[in-house]
Amino acid sequence: MTEAGTLLYEGKAKRLFTTADPTVLRSQFKDDATAFNAEKKGQIEGKGVANCTIASYLFRYLEQRGVPNHFIVQTAPDEMQVQPVTILKIEVIARNRAAGSICKTLGLERGMDIEPPLVEFFYKNDDLGDPLITSERIRILNLATPAQVEVLRSQTLRINRLLKDFFERCQLQLVDFKLEFGVDSAGHVILADEISPDTCRLWDLSDGRVLDKDLFRFDLGDPVAGYQEVLQRVRQAAPALIDHLDGLDPNA
Amino acid sequence: MTEAGTLLYEGKAKRLFTTADPTVLRSQFKDDATAFNAEKKGQIEGKGVANCTIASYLFRYLEQRGVPNHFIVQTAPDEMQVQPVTILKIEVIARNRAAGSICKTLGLERGMDIEPPLVEFFYKNDDLGDPLITSERIRILNLATPAQVEVLRSQTLRINRLLKDFFERCQLQLVDFKLEFGVDSAGHVILADEISPDTCRLWDLSDGRVLDKDLFRFDLGDPVAGYQEVLQRVRQAAPALIDHLDGLDPNA
Repeated sequence: MTEAGTLLYEGKAKRLFTTADPTVLRSQFKDDATAFNAEKKGQIEGKGVANCTIASYLFRYLEQRGVPNHFIVQTAPDEMQVQPVTILKIEVIARNRAAGSICKTLGLERGMDIEPPLVEFFYKNDDLGDPLITSERIRILNLATPAQVEVLRSQTLRINRLLKDFFERCQLQLVDFKLEFGVDSAGHVILADEISPDTCRLWDLSDGRVLDKDLFRFDLGDPVAGYQEVLQRVRQAAPALIDHLDGLDPNA
Repeated sequence: MTEAGTLLYEGKAKRLFTTADPTVLRSQFKDDATAFNAEKKGQIEGKGVANCTIASYLFRYLEQRGVPNHFIVQTAPDEMQVQPVTILKIEVIARNRAAGSICKTLGLERGMDIEPPLVEFFYKNDDLGDPLITSERIRILNLATPAQVEVLRSQTLRINRLLKDFFERCQLQLVDFKLEFGVDSAGHVILADEISPDTCRLWDLSDGRVLDKDLFRFDLGDPVAGYQEVLQRVRQAAPALIDHLDGLDPNA
């Protein structure tokens, strides 16, 4: 029995605490920013609040369209309640355009259209540098069953379509994004972690301006302003896209 | 019209020449040895003859079991005639046990059994360091059609079964190997390049002794002796496994 408020896990961008209810955890979003497997470190003021709020809106939006995920309710500007899950050690990446590591690895031009979108798996292992893994490597490493891999692939393609729609209403282009999934108490694979400018590449739809963590990674501009702009656009688009806004965005 | 005897291509381990017949090329095997994307260079005396002879035996053996390949005839101890093909820019790797790069990349223990065997694709591109590619990345890079990828996968699994049998008769364990395929004048994907201790990891079946290019890569012992031992064992096993030995092994 873990006492309520115990720190269960501290990651690079979030802390996870127990609550009095064993079926509920509290996820607190930090301003800490890291890049390149934590070789670059810093802070982005307001990132915790922006990411927690954006992720809350997007989780609610996805849930209303049949994508099960760990989100329950946003309880503070930088905190949400989530269901406990066992995170799979697989990072799922979806790409609509070429950017970041894939350009360097394969010699692709930045911005190249990828249609149909690409869904790929990476081994969530900092010591090994999160290498690309195939479904066969997932089998050898025992990271997930073949049926779970199929859920990851089909859910990610579905999430990609839904998020592309959402962000287009925000005048943002969804270039690529990373998802993490977990297994819940019933044994189902559900979406977890977060969806935010830390985990999505988002380019302004009209001028291609970068509005995501690449601002921090590559010193492309002011990350604080970038995250706030995404938050404002999500906040404005949300009422038309989400049925009930209760338990979301205490700051709005 | 290219003149007979023109050097068409020089790789790290072989030279390819035209002949008077446009449907026939001459492949000459060199003693040059390279490793780690040519960062390590050297010579292994007798390697050209050993590899050419071993590859000739194995290509004939595979052809007699329905695996089409570019081999025509061995014309000299270090030379064979082959059909011209357009080589696909894909290295196909099959693994029965974990060794080499996969151990480092995924943190696997050397020698770990991989069952069913693993078939993987790498982008044949020295500048990019031959990265792992999925069938989706093959599509994006336009390296092969999905139907060709399926031929690569199924033929490699079949070749693995056949080569495992062959090498077991040589008291050798086939740990892993690299294949290259090409498209022939009729548009068919056929096996090309070579099969030798340069491209296969071969461990002695009884004591696990390394008898392949890892001797050179990691300074594990005398590569000259290793290649000669594999040649002798293949030469001894061949009559029981291959129907006609004409046009093979002029030195035998």
